[in-house]
Amino acid sequence: MSDPDRPRPQGARAPDLRPLLDPGAIAILGASDDPTRIGGRPLRYMLEAGFARPIYPVNPNRATVQGLKCYATIADVPGPVDCALVALPAEIVVEAVEACAAKGVKSTVVFSSGFAETDAEGAARQARLAEVVRRTGIRVVGPNCLGIFNAGIGFYATFSSSLDAGPPPPGNIAIVSQSGAYGSHVFALARAKRLGVRYWITTGNECDVEIAEGIAWAALAEDVEVIVAYAEGVRDGAGLRHSLDLARAAGKPVIFMKVGRSEIGAAAAASHTAALAGSDAIYDAVFRQHGAYRADSTEAMLDVAYACTAGIYPKGRRIGLVTISGGVGVQMADAASDLGLDVAAMPEAAQARLKEMLPYAAPRNPVDITAQAFNDLTLVSRNLELMLEEGGYDVIVAFFTMVAASPYIVDDLLAALGELRRRYPERLIVLSLVAPPDIVQRYEDAGFLVFEDPGRAIAAVAALAGFGRSFARGPADPPPTLAADAIAIPDERLSEHESKTILAAAGLPVVEERLIRSAEAAAEAAEKIGPPVVMKLNSRDIGHKTEIGGVLLNVASPEAARQGYETLLARAAEAAPGALVDGVLVAPMVRDGVETILGVQHDPVFGPAVMFGLGGIFAEALGDVVFRIAPFGEDEARRMIGEIQGRAVLEGLRGRPRADQEALAKALAALSGFAAAAANRIESVDVNPFLVRPEGEGAVAVDALIVPCKKELSS
Amino acid sequence: MSDPDRPRPQGARAPDLRPLLDPGAIAILGASDDPTRIGGRPLRYMLEAGFARPIYPVNPNRATVQGLKCYATIADVPGPVDCALVALPAEIVVEAVEACAAKGVKSTVVFSSGFAETDAEGAARQARLAEVVRRTGIRVVGPNCLGIFNAGIGFYATFSSSLDAGPPPPGNIAIVSQSGAYGSHVFALARAKRLGVRYWITTGNECDVEIAEGIAWAALAEDVEVIVAYAEGVRDGAGLRHSLDLARAAGKPVIFMKVGRSEIGAAAAASHTAALAGSDAIYDAVFRQHGAYRADSTEAMLDVAYACTAGIYPKGRRIGLVTISGGVGVQMADAASDLGLDVAAMPEAAQARLKEMLPYAAPRNPVDITAQAFNDLTLVSRNLELMLEEGGYDVIVAFFTMVAASPYIVDDLLAALGELRRRYPERLIVLSLVAPPDIVQRYEDAGFLVFEDPGRAIAAVAALAGFGRSFARGPADPPPTLAADAIAIPDERLSEHESKTILAAAGLPVVEERLIRSAEAAAEAAEKIGPPVVMKLNSRDIGHKTEIGGVLLNVASPEAARQGYETLLARAAEAAPGALVDGVLVAPMVRDGVETILGVQHDPVFGPAVMFGLGGIFAEALGDVVFRIAPFGEDEARRMIGEIQGRAVLEGLRGRPRADQEALAKALAALSGFAAAAANRIESVDVNPFLVRPEGEGAVAVDALIVPCKKELSS
Repeated sequence: MSDPDRPRPQGARAPDLRPLLDPGAIAILGASDDPTRIGGRPLRYMLEAGFARPIYPVNPNRATVQGLKCYATIADVPGPVDCALVALPAEIVVEAVEACAAKGVKSTVVFSSGFAETDAEGAARQARLAEVVRRTGIRVVGPNCLGIFNAGIGFYATFSSSLDAGPPPPGNIAIVSQSGAYGSHVFALARAKRLGVRYWITTGNECDVEIAEGIAWAALAEDVEVIVAYAEGVRDGAGLRHSLDLARAAGKPVIFMKVGRSEIGAAAAASHTAALAGSDAIYDAVFRQHGAYRADSTEAMLDVAYACTAGIYPKGRRIGLVTISGGVGVQMADAASDLGLDVAAMPEAAQARLKEMLPYAAPRNPVDITAQAFNDLTLVSRNLELMLEEGGYDVIVAFFTMVAASPYIVDDLLAALGELRRRYPERLIVLSLVAPPDIVQRYEDAGFLVFEDPGRAIAAVAALAGFGRSFARGPADPPPTLAADAIAIPDERLSEHESKTILAAAGLPVVEERLIRSAEAAAEAAEKIGPPVVMKLNSRDIGHKTEIGGVLLNVASPEAARQGYETLLARAAEAAPGALVDGVLVAPMVRDGVETILGVQHDPVFGPAVMFGLGGIFAEALGDVVFRIAPFGEDEARRMIGEIQGRAVLEGLRGRPRADQEALAKALAALSGFAAAAANRIESVDVNPFLVRPEGEGAVAVDALIVPCKKELSS
Repeated sequence: MSDPDRPRPQGARAPDLRPLLDPGAIAILGASDDPTRIGGRPLRYMLEAGFARPIYPVNPNRATVQGLKCYATIADVPGPVDCALVALPAEIVVEAVEACAAKGVKSTVVFSSGFAETDAEGAARQARLAEVVRRTGIRVVGPNCLGIFNAGIGFYATFSSSLDAGPPPPGNIAIVSQSGAYGSHVFALARAKRLGVRYWITTGNECDVEIAEGIAWAALAEDVEVIVAYAEGVRDGAGLRHSLDLARAAGKPVIFMKVGRSEIGAAAAASHTAALAGSDAIYDAVFRQHGAYRADSTEAMLDVAYACTAGIYPKGRRIGLVTISGGVGVQMADAASDLGLDVAAMPEAAQARLKEMLPYAAPRNPVDITAQAFNDLTLVSRNLELMLEEGGYDVIVAFFTMVAASPYIVDDLLAALGELRRRYPERLIVLSLVAPPDIVQRYEDAGFLVFEDPGRAIAAVAALAGFGRSFARGPADPPPTLAADAIAIPDERLSEHESKTILAAAGLPVVEERLIRSAEAAAEAAEKIGPPVVMKLNSRDIGHKTEIGGVLLNVASPEAARQGYETLLARAAEAAPGALVDGVLVAPMVRDGVETILGVQHDPVFGPAVMFGLGGIFAEALGDVVFRIAPFGEDEARRMIGEIQGRAVLEGLRGRPRADQEALAKALAALSGFAAAAANRIESVDVNPFLVRPEGEGAVAVDALIVPCKKELSS
């Protein structure tokens, strides 16, 4: 790990951020009388918000600060202190935090910059701060952060100028962000959209508290329903996964923006933060595995957060579309279909009834009621009722644009729709309107989500449906369990045969092959297996055996096998004269299958990750591979298989049989069990090709290689 | 074609919509004194807007309408009339239009519904209307449309209630939409964003005027700079392409939304409109080929239209990113990179200078100046100056969020930035701000584009860069020319050999092969070609020869070829006893190449389209194929090749040689020339595989089949 001074990961611990986020009493080190300065703003915000618990300003140069009695040092503070805000020059921060620990202060929020984000001197300073954390147990948010807040109690431990425009409206959203500037931006946008941010946590340099703990706090906090997170990269992978699991178990959606998707973005992220990058594809896997929604824009993040405030997470994917413009109906159908929602047709009988009611309507789905329906608003609600009742849609999105915005229409339409809202409380009903904010609010107050753009409405609905599926599936299905020492892995390089033997012991189906060490044995093996056979050099020292002609395909007879043995050994002697050759593998030619690739990589943040893709050069050309963190069960493996773009190949194209996806899922789960058990012993596993045979016929690893790690990795 | 009553396509004609869009005098049939009715609204809008040309209300039941003298019939109108609005019951529309034609009225806008969008009776009515158009030459917009407007002269020939909120602000955007409801929605959104819509054209059922003519009008109109178009499908493919070319030649961007991308969306579109669907992938090809931007949401459409009002279309892709939040810098870099923009690093020397100026900045690109730079605003402008001067960026996007929104900062920042705006008028400078509308407007008035969301800013910039490239490349490069009768194509089914002979004559490189008709000749051919060879049955009657064992690979000797001949004929006799076999093809085994697929399909709207994709089952599994309308030149073919997802395969993966893409481009262009020349004679061409050999070694069609059409297609 790149930061040896950092305390141990918190993943295993239950989060205990109460002193930070719900403190009984607080101190402000470097408190200022000037309400525009870093040491003055938090106090001003808290006084304005009526924070009702003891506040102790600390400043040796003043008797009072903003009307409160001021103390010369933290030691002088009379009562106990849960949290101290530190607004001091970097040079004196470490001793100040040390003094806090000595006083028994439980936590600190360090605003000061001049730490690891600057230079070697700053990094050394941060290391000393981390050492204080480790030694005393005091918790530190920051340094170099914009702080935190808990709007519920008026605790604004932040100098972010985004609070100048006032506190957030009431609500149950938690924002957890590594970046203070970005956290402020998102908070400002959220407030502009009238979204109530309850907790706001920016972690800055993360010398101690990481965003994972913030997410875990929010997952367990009773006054949080929606979690929005932002990271450029995390260090505590296990902690992050644990916090996402807590949120999922609590039925709270996590909307996560992790930047650095592209190569250039990742480079920019690396230069911007000291955090370990990890692979972006692995983050993607983590979010999928733990049911978090990965937002790729701030707009999408807030759209989904807004949609989550409805608290309805559809279990199914059936979406009913209503429109007064046929063209927008088509657009919505396109968007819904792109996002995997099911634009199921209305039942024929219901279509007929609808057509009776609205002769000019297109009744299938999208249901085009045209603007004419607004001449009698009960037609609008009766249409929606029919769709909810007969169509069985989990979600309805209705595009009414400015037609429903007229003040004359709002009352009547709300009267007509409100009854439906009460009768179907578990169905999501989303309106797409172009209307002034006061009209939008009236629809929202009546229990409808309102979006201006129908496409953004559909995207948000798809995210809610994703949460619905994730919440419904319950705890992760059990992975195969292998004891950490169940399988011995040598320290040195492994041959193909040794690799396969180990993987077979871990439950991966492997081609039945014989390791022989003479021409005579080769002939016998070919005879027993039945030609044609494959013959391969088996050597720890020859990595790319194909390149030196170390593989013979279609060996047609025992006699050819005898000859083949000599040929292979001669080739090894010529091309790799120093290599130890531990015999030759003889195996049946396996055909009739889809070539896939399975693998294990060791991610520096999340540990062993299992990779899956289709074989051939296309995985490489298209990057069409998916990952999951090991270990995982077969259900997760099935979801993984379903995520590759080329999955149609496994379904059987051009009349080919469907591939045995159950066997594939079992193999992936088995490999993940092995990867987890051997996490500290292996650098990588490459199973290529892994042949998935027609349904019912299983699958086999045809070639495989385990690369042990040079020295044991500490986790 | 499905609508034989429709007049001929207008593609070849110069558009002549002046009587419709710039009429000297107008009449309103069915004029109403009630300004809320369909026959009353247009008059009200025009009177309010001060339309200064003669207006003749026509209504047998009234002496005056909204204060104007009213006429009993169109024949009674004293002066000449360029355009008559028709707000009459469907039953009397045809005779009314006929009466208009008799009076010499040049054009009509028919609001009335009750035509092809309803039932068979309506369709018959529309056919009669089309017949009047054909016979008299009068032009018709509609029926079943919301009308048109020319805001420049206050001509509001529409009853859309979106005009209730007043006319649009001045500007140079044309909106051309098949759907009136959607056109109204887009217009309302555009006005809310202060975008000036000059022309608004909704074509409804398109019994005569199609959107292509509207686009062509806008392309040639001096008071239009940006064109926004919406369609569910067009009938006049050639007309659409011609209009897009006119726009491109005039340097006017076309932002096009064509709905029905997905299967379910296409089905919804088909049920919503009588227009021929055509294939959505072909529309995609048309937009790429003619440089139009395909919008996939209304929001994107309006974002790009707004960005186009700056009138700056960057020739290059270099984008400089400025941010006060490192995290947003990474997000912008991700988004820019996804969209093919070049987030090029600042030159080292410039980075050093920047670092001197702003010691806390990250100077590479994205340039993170942090909010601290706002303490001295000249730092912000000097940073931008350095980026424009030394970084050579075509575009700068600066994320200042709410920091630049403070009223105190705006004056000073504008003073600092304004000078830059004047010195670099050809560079695009986009600000990402969270600010109230009046502050946004001040930045816009100073020549900056303003977006709230940085991701949407980047997406719009990418669209502008696409237009810049399209405008810069000038007229389409010349396609290969083949006279329409240069190549004779029989009416009947063709064998592989006949197909290849025809394609070779058209300039497609084809594998050198021999058609032999005896075992002896097979042996001789194998001898001359040099084994191993491939042998294939050559028969018009056997389509899938692989399935009956009609292909022998790796035939290793003349003797084997002799035997092979007998084997193939025996198989043909057994599997396809009635089939005529016209000999056997003997060809060399071609290796060392990337398997690709070339094809030609006949699109009902756009005619012959050339398809390209990589071979194997992946093209099928992933749908990774691209199209272009034939004919086209090699430059277009190169762009086409660059569009497939798997293009890395052609660049040489895993140390394989780069494929001969020049030969591939030549072949695609040649095939397009053939497809265009033989457009009326062929149903499809399938060249599979087309083997693209290593660079410098060309490419060859290994198998090919031309399917002639049953009877000659009329275009």
